[in-house]
Amino acid sequence: MTTRVGVIGAGNIGTAHALNLARAVSGASVGVVFDADAVRAEALSAELGARAVRSVTEVFDADDVDAVLIASPDGVHAEQLMIGFGVGKPILCEKPLAVGEADARAVLDAEVALGRRLVQLGFMRRFDPGYVQLKAELTPEGIGEPLIVHNIHRNTRAPYGLVTEQTLTNMVIHEFDIARWLLEEEYASIMVLAGTPGPLTPAGQHDPLLVVLQSASGVIVEIEAFANARYGYEVVCRVTGSQGQAVMGDGSFVTRSKAFTRGVGLPELWLGRFAEAYRLQLQGWVDAVRSEGPFPGASIWDGYAATVVANRAIEAHRTGRRVAIDLPPRPVLYT
Amino acid sequence: MTTRVGVIGAGNIGTAHALNLARAVSGASVGVVFDADAVRAEALSAELGARAVRSVTEVFDADDVDAVLIASPDGVHAEQLMIGFGVGKPILCEKPLAVGEADARAVLDAEVALGRRLVQLGFMRRFDPGYVQLKAELTPEGIGEPLIVHNIHRNTRAPYGLVTEQTLTNMVIHEFDIARWLLEEEYASIMVLAGTPGPLTPAGQHDPLLVVLQSASGVIVEIEAFANARYGYEVVCRVTGSQGQAVMGDGSFVTRSKAFTRGVGLPELWLGRFAEAYRLQLQGWVDAVRSEGPFPGASIWDGYAATVVANRAIEAHRTGRRVAIDLPPRPVLYT
Amino acid sequence: MTTRVGVIGAGNIGTAHALNLARAVSGASVGVVFDADAVRAEALSAELGARAVRSVTEVFDADDVDAVLIASPDGVHAEQLMIGFGVGKPILCEKPLAVGEADARAVLDAEVALGRRLVQLGFMRRFDPGYVQLKAELTPEGIGEPLIVHNIHRNTRAPYGLVTEQTLTNMVIHEFDIARWLLEEEYASIMVLAGTPGPLTPAGQHDPLLVVLQSASGVIVEIEAFANARYGYEVVCRVTGSQGQAVMGDGSFVTRSKAFTRGVGLPELWLGRFAEAYRLQLQGWVDAVRSEGPFPGASIWDGYAATVVANRAIEAHRTGRRVAIDLPPRPVLYT
Amino acid sequence: MTTRVGVIGAGNIGTAHALNLARAVSGASVGVVFDADAVRAEALSAELGARAVRSVTEVFDADDVDAVLIASPDGVHAEQLMIGFGVGKPILCEKPLAVGEADARAVLDAEVALGRRLVQLGFMRRFDPGYVQLKAELTPEGIGEPLIVHNIHRNTRAPYGLVTEQTLTNMVIHEFDIARWLLEEEYASIMVLAGTPGPLTPAGQHDPLLVVLQSASGVIVEIEAFANARYGYEVVCRVTGSQGQAVMGDGSFVTRSKAFTRGVGLPELWLGRFAEAYRLQLQGWVDAVRSEGPFPGASIWDGYAATVVANRAIEAHRTGRRVAIDLPPRPVLYT
Repeated sequence: MTTRVGVIGAGNIGTAHALNLARAVSGASVGVVFDADAVRAEALSAELGARAVRSVTEVFDADDVDAVLIASPDGVHAEQLMIGFGVGKPILCEKPLAVGEADARAVLDAEVALGRRLVQLGFMRRFDPGYVQLKAELTPEGIGEPLIVHNIHRNTRAPYGLVTEQTLTNMVIHEFDIARWLLEEEYASIMVLAGTPGPLTPAGQHDPLLVVLQSASGVIVEIEAFANARYGYEVVCRVTGSQGQAVMGDGSFVTRSKAFTRGVGLPELWLGRFAEAYRLQLQGWVDAVRSEGPFPGASIWDGYAATVVANRAIEAHRTGRRVAIDLPPRPVLYT
Repeated sequence: MTTRVGVIGAGNIGTAHALNLARAVSGASVGVVFDADAVRAEALSAELGARAVRSVTEVFDADDVDAVLIASPDGVHAEQLMIGFGVGKPILCEKPLAVGEADARAVLDAEVALGRRLVQLGFMRRFDPGYVQLKAELTPEGIGEPLIVHNIHRNTRAPYGLVTEQTLTNMVIHEFDIARWLLEEEYASIMVLAGTPGPLTPAGQHDPLLVVLQSASGVIVEIEAFANARYGYEVVCRVTGSQGQAVMGDGSFVTRSKAFTRGVGLPELWLGRFAEAYRLQLQGWVDAVRSEGPFPGASIWDGYAATVVANRAIEAHRTGRRVAIDLPPRPVLYT
Repeated sequence: MTTRVGVIGAGNIGTAHALNLARAVSGASVGVVFDADAVRAEALSAELGARAVRSVTEVFDADDVDAVLIASPDGVHAEQLMIGFGVGKPILCEKPLAVGEADARAVLDAEVALGRRLVQLGFMRRFDPGYVQLKAELTPEGIGEPLIVHNIHRNTRAPYGLVTEQTLTNMVIHEFDIARWLLEEEYASIMVLAGTPGPLTPAGQHDPLLVVLQSASGVIVEIEAFANARYGYEVVCRVTGSQGQAVMGDGSFVTRSKAFTRGVGLPELWLGRFAEAYRLQLQGWVDAVRSEGPFPGASIWDGYAATVVANRAIEAHRTGRRVAIDLPPRPVLYT
Repeated sequence: MTTRVGVIGAGNIGTAHALNLARAVSGASVGVVFDADAVRAEALSAELGARAVRSVTEVFDADDVDAVLIASPDGVHAEQLMIGFGVGKPILCEKPLAVGEADARAVLDAEVALGRRLVQLGFMRRFDPGYVQLKAELTPEGIGEPLIVHNIHRNTRAPYGLVTEQTLTNMVIHEFDIARWLLEEEYASIMVLAGTPGPLTPAGQHDPLLVVLQSASGVIVEIEAFANARYGYEVVCRVTGSQGQAVMGDGSFVTRSKAFTRGVGLPELWLGRFAEAYRLQLQGWVDAVRSEGPFPGASIWDGYAATVVANRAIEAHRTGRRVAIDLPPRPVLYT
């Protein structure tokens, strides 16, 4: 009755997932861990009373593994998913689905060929209480039909060596997914405007960026991305509807007055803001695995769409033009 | 390795606890349910795949019960705890510890005589992320030494037939406990001021009430209780310290603008506000039971102290005077 | 058509008033200035193109003075008002009306004997846009009948040598007046609780103080005064009514995110918060003088009542008891 | 010493200005009023004790008029300014400077030919305490160098018959000016994106609109305009800088909790939000006139620039392209 999960990847995210599964998710345990770095796999296994194995195949094949969590480096997601498709156990795969559009398409085609959905993709914001409450406002009793979605995404400072494309494929990709999820429709076009870099932005980075999308029905989606915002980590989403407006902030409990300022603290890093989303994502996935019900999270189609949008964003950034977004028809499996 | 919990009481709170244990708490399951209303016990058992039993004794004695959760009516807590002491399994008991001061003292004496702590008391606010963040501010790096604790506790409307004493023993008792927990010291005195009742307050109720306590070291604790506030359910705690001030609100994520108001929604009932505190309380208790570590929540001493304070509050309300709070020395077991 | 104002007192407040009259109030000019320090009077006069005189009597008697503003030290207000009563020109007098209760009563009796109201008292908070908006909520369409008034009054640090009585007579006196004005009724009783002093409170000061009043009809009024709050200057007033709750804060326009905090700035001193109230108070008084209409601000009766309450507060603080507030009947002149 | 103002236009805005001058601005009076509707001019004159005249020329020529305020319909501003230039008295002219770009240019050229600045243009937001506080944050001690300016401008409902061009020339023109003023530089390009209209937007209107500008140095300026927002009137400006972020909201004093919502009220109309800005604008202008100092508000150059931007916005909206903004060199007179 307990779902025994095999974990692929024992880095930061993989470790956080494994600890959640073992200690904070009902009905789950971690039986097997793999990491390309065997020492890391052993250390995590020891902490959890699990068993370290030497290959991805071993994880998928193990008799005492009911389901698999992939938290390996982005570049091997596609390949590991393909291995998993051969075995047929349920998978939770960290985002992104794949690095390139071709790989993303190949994975999509493979799951479609398989004829059933094995994979939930780790766009964890869909489980965040803040976004869930925001989406609940998009009703006639709430703010009416959504007309503008304005997103703010700030990181305190960009990792050393970040290139502008990564702002689009790793950072803004969360907004690409979450606005699609809020609106329940695809995008039609995208523009990217590079602002003047601040004095603290490393040379060569285009930062901040303003991304402007328009959905198929004409809804405007703005994303203000700033990877070197200095003031802290912050994610805000404001939806203006035909009847009102709803803004998702950070759900702070405590306002502090000190040293001539009254306000809330902003985190330096992102993990704290979305810790509960990560836990709820895992509980939802484990519950679906146990009940053999449909996955509550993002699908491979969602991951493929996000990859396409990110690639069009790169093109829009390079050309300075508005670029059309040209998804193929959505396979029946994902409707 | 899974802690099998027996649940006593299948009413609103007992059911919420049982569902949390079965579905949202890691390492726990519900094996046995008792309720004075056998139909209710059967219904909950069926939903959880558990077994309904016919007596409290059966719950405590069952071989497949590792720990017991008491969520029965307030008046039988003391008696059921006494039964549990005879068996020796870990207990999570809903607040209050007992209705009368004598019963509370008897339970305290019994656990002291037993020589080890079996019981965690269900003051779940101690697990609320809001209060936890607030307490974290009470440091030299935060707001310094606490000097004033101002509490607001609003209910939308009082249950039919509520008498003023119940405002103190059932509603304000949460603040009695939480301010003790924040300050980590006992109270020295208490006053109660009955305000003029609003036009919507049922005849005979004294509502709102202002309770003013002073701690042993002189910290002022105010509690504004209003059981018929109409505008919604709301709990606020403001601590003013020697270096700053921290206010705990409701952690709302979404601000809505509609119909010429911009603001956050207030719940009509209390459960939603503290849902996460209930889950975390159970997880903490189950983790302690599994690891045989100390309970992370309130003790019988805390429950006894709250009962004494509530009784002095009733006296202060009746006499209009400041009443001293005269706890016996804290038993070594609780230090 | 321009009201020519004579100003008594060229200290901080007197200078601020004079500059407002000359530069920001329609229909007013400053013709004459007196200060016990002749150098100060000359300097202010020179700046305003006014004339410095050598006595209070000269100010009241001057042909080119239509109305008089008293901003002298507290201890001479009563004596100067008596001089003014002999001349009969309209007066705006800074609070307090008098230092002692006997003097306050004498001034009250003198104006009553005169049979007409010559004096508006400088409780400028009644003109503050924040308090005015708050009072506008006290209607059936707003928050209903007021039941609890909770006031927060923080100073960054107390002036050197402040004694606890001054916290009550100079600082909290604003709340004594403003809650009376909000409720439109007198107080029945008062209690004062001295909290444990913070580590930064100068020895001998009782700070913070909690003052609890009850109005004649039973409304509860709390005042949390903290003269050494360190975190900044702050005034908050929360009124809980039978239908809702309204909180007056500081009307900040700008929220700043910086260095891992998002919030509003708090001033170190009080003048900025109430600058607009001072201007509006003067404009209202000048308009009344020009139109010979009734004064829009506090009367001598209001000043007398505040003085009585402050004196009962001192008694309550000294005795630790609840003290009754025993105003004489309100003279017909003030109804 | 009092500045006697002649008022041209006795409609809503002209009346508001005239009442402010007569009753709330120090050192000003209204002596003469003209309106194309003589009845309206007479009514306002009677209320203010002024004199109605029959032509614009009479206003400018009157011996008892020291300065002139133009609040006539937009279409005649340019012509009346030209008349005023012939007389040489100081002018405060409501925005816009002119309706068409050619007229705006002609007025600009005329003042340049005159060789001195006679006109302050009525972009009153520059005097709003909110925007002034926001601008004060744009320092190294504040939020650093501005990088993104995000503006929200909502009207409750568009006037009957509004065409999309008017959203740009009458509504968004405020943001065109205010962002220039905040950044202290000109724009380089503009794009306009029309969102899908809400179900309550009148047929034929493009609403909401997203305008994206980039300044000469590369700062991104977004303007979300929504003329049929329904939820209320709201203006927000968020500046993200290299060191932090500052958001200007509405400066509400009172938060109300009622009917399960806690929040601030939003006005239905715009006048209340900027009432103080209007008063301060007039006081600043009158002070400059009296002291013969430079005008503290917008110049004809600012008005010309706003007109050019609005025209490029119309072109961008029609073509769906990014359009360059091509101002001529700034005349020396305005540096």
